[in-house]
Amino acid sequence: MVNSKLRTAFTEQLRDIYWAERKLTEAMPKLADAAQNKALAQGLRNHLEETKNQVKRLEQVFKAMELQPRAETCEAMKGLIEESEEIIEGHESGTLRDALLIAAAQKVEHYEIATYGTLCEWADVLGLDDVRELLAETLEQEKAADEELSEVARSINRSAAQV
Amino acid sequence: MVNSKLRTAFTEQLRDIYWAERKLTEAMPKLADAAQNKALAQGLRNHLEETKNQVKRLEQVFKAMELQPRAETCEAMKGLIEESEEIIEGHESGTLRDALLIAAAQKVEHYEIATYGTLCEWADVLGLDDVRELLAETLEQEKAADEELSEVARSINRSAAQV
Repeated sequence: MVNSKLRTAFTEQLRDIYWAERKLTEAMPKLADAAQNKALAQGLRNHLEETKNQVKRLEQVFKAMELQPRAETCEAMKGLIEESEEIIEGHESGTLRDALLIAAAQKVEHYEIATYGTLCEWADVLGLDDVRELLAETLEQEKAADEELSEVARSINRSAAQV
Repeated sequence: MVNSKLRTAFTEQLRDIYWAERKLTEAMPKLADAAQNKALAQGLRNHLEETKNQVKRLEQVFKAMELQPRAETCEAMKGLIEESEEIIEGHESGTLRDALLIAAAQKVEHYEIATYGTLCEWADVLGLDDVRELLAETLEQEKAADEELSEVARSINRSAAQV
């Protein structure tokens, strides 16, 4: 097993995204409940189930690396989740709030895309092939979730511009 | 001119990314100076010049919307920039630090991709066609910058795994 400093950095990023994913499993039901649009609410609920599996997948990664799963506060994700909570508190239910929730959720997805992208590349050069495969599966799910949000945003944005 | 609540939300996102881009013009020279790899340093310097133009483009957007340019602190970007400063302070110059800087820079790019993506969609439904065009130009630059970082990362990550 390669035991480089990059492996240490990899572990740190892993703990960061593990914190983020677990926090998201708590935050996403609130987002889904706040969504007025049915397709958006359903999309968020589906992604919540995916996120729970992503947490399990990260635990498999820790195990494969012979590490105990450990979460370290991810300040960026903390800020993004707070932002989405402020949207819910600060706006009435409706298409405008839905549009704002989508914008916030896409920032979350892009943070994850960047992080899993890096983790996949690092796993590759560290020779962690099985780990790379697990992370690549999640990366594809995050990209798909972002695209689905763009899709559902179209009609919501159009309505939101009228209020 | 459409005067909806979405237009207000659009203006808020605009001020957020205006703050972010201006802060990045201050932070990026430090990142470029800290990079050991010449291609990475040059890439960051090129993107700094692009970022200065992106600031000007945002000022054109404010003008087109008959608004004074105003920046509002973007907490997420603040956190991401602080992270990159900690990387510089906490690690010696070398391929590992370069790999970490790329990871941080790609999080920045993805934050911008998400934000400009939303702004473009909102400009579209708000009927702000000229504004949409300006923002779409920046969006393409951010996507290209992210891809260039992935490209330059390949050899750097490979070296970083050996230290």
